[in-house]
Amino acid sequence: MALIQRLQPFCAVDLIGDDAAVLPANAADWVVTTDVLVDGVHFSDRTTPPESVGWRAVAANLSDLAAMGASPVGITVGLSLPGTVPVTWVEAVYRGMATCLQTYGGAILGGDVVRSAQVSLAITALGRVTPGQAFYRHGAQPGDVIVVTGYHGASRAGLELLLNPAAGAALSPSVRGAWIEAHQRPRPRFDVVEVLRQILNAYPTASMGAMDSSDGLANAILHLCKASGVGARLVRSQLPFPPALVGWVGMAAAERWVLYGGEDFELVLCLPREIAQALVNQLGPTAAIVGTIQPDPGVYLVETPDVTTGISLGWEDCFQHF
Amino acid sequence: MALIQRLQPFCAVDLIGDDAAVLPANAADWVVTTDVLVDGVHFSDRTTPPESVGWRAVAANLSDLAAMGASPVGITVGLSLPGTVPVTWVEAVYRGMATCLQTYGGAILGGDVVRSAQVSLAITALGRVTPGQAFYRHGAQPGDVIVVTGYHGASRAGLELLLNPAAGAALSPSVRGAWIEAHQRPRPRFDVVEVLRQILNAYPTASMGAMDSSDGLANAILHLCKASGVGARLVRSQLPFPPALVGWVGMAAAERWVLYGGEDFELVLCLPREIAQALVNQLGPTAAIVGTIQPDPGVYLVETPDVTTGISLGWEDCFQHF
Repeated sequence: MALIQRLQPFCAVDLIGDDAAVLPANAADWVVTTDVLVDGVHFSDRTTPPESVGWRAVAANLSDLAAMGASPVGITVGLSLPGTVPVTWVEAVYRGMATCLQTYGGAILGGDVVRSAQVSLAITALGRVTPGQAFYRHGAQPGDVIVVTGYHGASRAGLELLLNPAAGAALSPSVRGAWIEAHQRPRPRFDVVEVLRQILNAYPTASMGAMDSSDGLANAILHLCKASGVGARLVRSQLPFPPALVGWVGMAAAERWVLYGGEDFELVLCLPREIAQALVNQLGPTAAIVGTIQPDPGVYLVETPDVTTGISLGWEDCFQHF
Repeated sequence: MALIQRLQPFCAVDLIGDDAAVLPANAADWVVTTDVLVDGVHFSDRTTPPESVGWRAVAANLSDLAAMGASPVGITVGLSLPGTVPVTWVEAVYRGMATCLQTYGGAILGGDVVRSAQVSLAITALGRVTPGQAFYRHGAQPGDVIVVTGYHGASRAGLELLLNPAAGAALSPSVRGAWIEAHQRPRPRFDVVEVLRQILNAYPTASMGAMDSSDGLANAILHLCKASGVGARLVRSQLPFPPALVGWVGMAAAERWVLYGGEDFELVLCLPREIAQALVNQLGPTAAIVGTIQPDPGVYLVETPDVTTGISLGWEDCFQHF
């Protein structure tokens, strides 16, 4: 049976089979985002089984929808692969994609399968959002505080454990499991969007800057500040270290992984303090206020909230390497 | 300047710069399609300058929208490339994409640029169509006739001229130019959709099967028949040969290129004869009725319309090779 036929069971059968998929008219705005994942750059058989390759590729795109405040409708998949790739590998990738979509909403709406020297997955995700309720990067304002969901650096730590399992011998199985899960099965934070929407009902005119942290926490804050024409101060003691990380790799490496590890797919939100505090209270200990938005440009890491000078943080390539 | 910044001038500046693009709510259905084009498989520097690589990649996706009866809104672009590719090459590809979108409508809404061993372009096109007015493959009915727009095999002939320019010495410059244009700058047939819509106003309940011929004319008819649960007879003398093709390569090769050359991006429409005739009358000599839909499965090439037996046409891989 041809590959494309074997992949049909994973797709929205009522929408595929034509030159394009038709999505019914709806009162919502549409949100569209594309990410490409390349074998050896964004994933690797060394560290990630094919189901997780599929999950992760979809989660990365859905995380962009969550960062815009949108709900998922579905994805298209442009799959490039050499003829030597086993069909069972491809089916497992599609199974992982379908599982992620079943978990968060949406379906595979179509795509293309082509021959290529290197495996890659180009995914386009489509979502919907009530008109006027999309989140953007450019809404951060001086006086806002910065809320970060989840731990950062956990995906990078999980990668380390997958590359060097022996290095994790001193860690508890639950810590090891959580970090590997963070790397292989990241969770787009639609749950945060839902909680935030409820809080925002009481603050209809509140501004906000929002982004996901796929390219690293520091880069996300730099992007938010650039788009909003502001600066930021991050407080070192408030950085969202995963428990046990500092003890395992030391403070210097832990700090690098928190700021530049990347691929954590959490949300970074710039909000008035009152809203931020309500959000953190509801999300519990895995969300935190980590700093403040400043009128002057530049993003600085400071020792305590009242200190005004610190280390300037710059853009760094945070692609994890396999 | 970073590559991604150099590509921004080609994009919809008011929509890019966030984790995703937001498209305003609208009373139309949305139509989505994805095609991946790989260097050395779907295009090559040997035969196609970078502007045309970009044009062709967009045209291939827009052609799928035209086949669904939709109007283009925009595209996202997943670009994979080795670090050795010159920025000027990438800019030229984006210029070609933007030119094609300016010609037919739509904008670049976002995308992703990643490192890869091989150049590839994964394009997702978004379009809109009035609810209830999308075209599908499954509407062909026994008694319908098959309308084909444009010539077929011209793209394949253009490729031949690009690979072996000397072989075309006996051809007129206008024929050579037309075939090379067909290969490098195919035109999605939104003009046909517009003419057909006007005709269909008088036939509100007419059924139709529609598809583009990107994978070859024979494969398009096989797809339409399979989706509709019908068969077809094509009449050899009515095949849409480009002028001068039979004289240049002989009947056997010309027939293969018409049926299996691929990449012509024309429309194949199964319609009641009255509507088909009105369409062909309006489109002029580059559209033709080439056969009929039959109740029994199987697609046959017959000598004349009244003959009922002929050569059985099968699926063939029609990828043009460079």
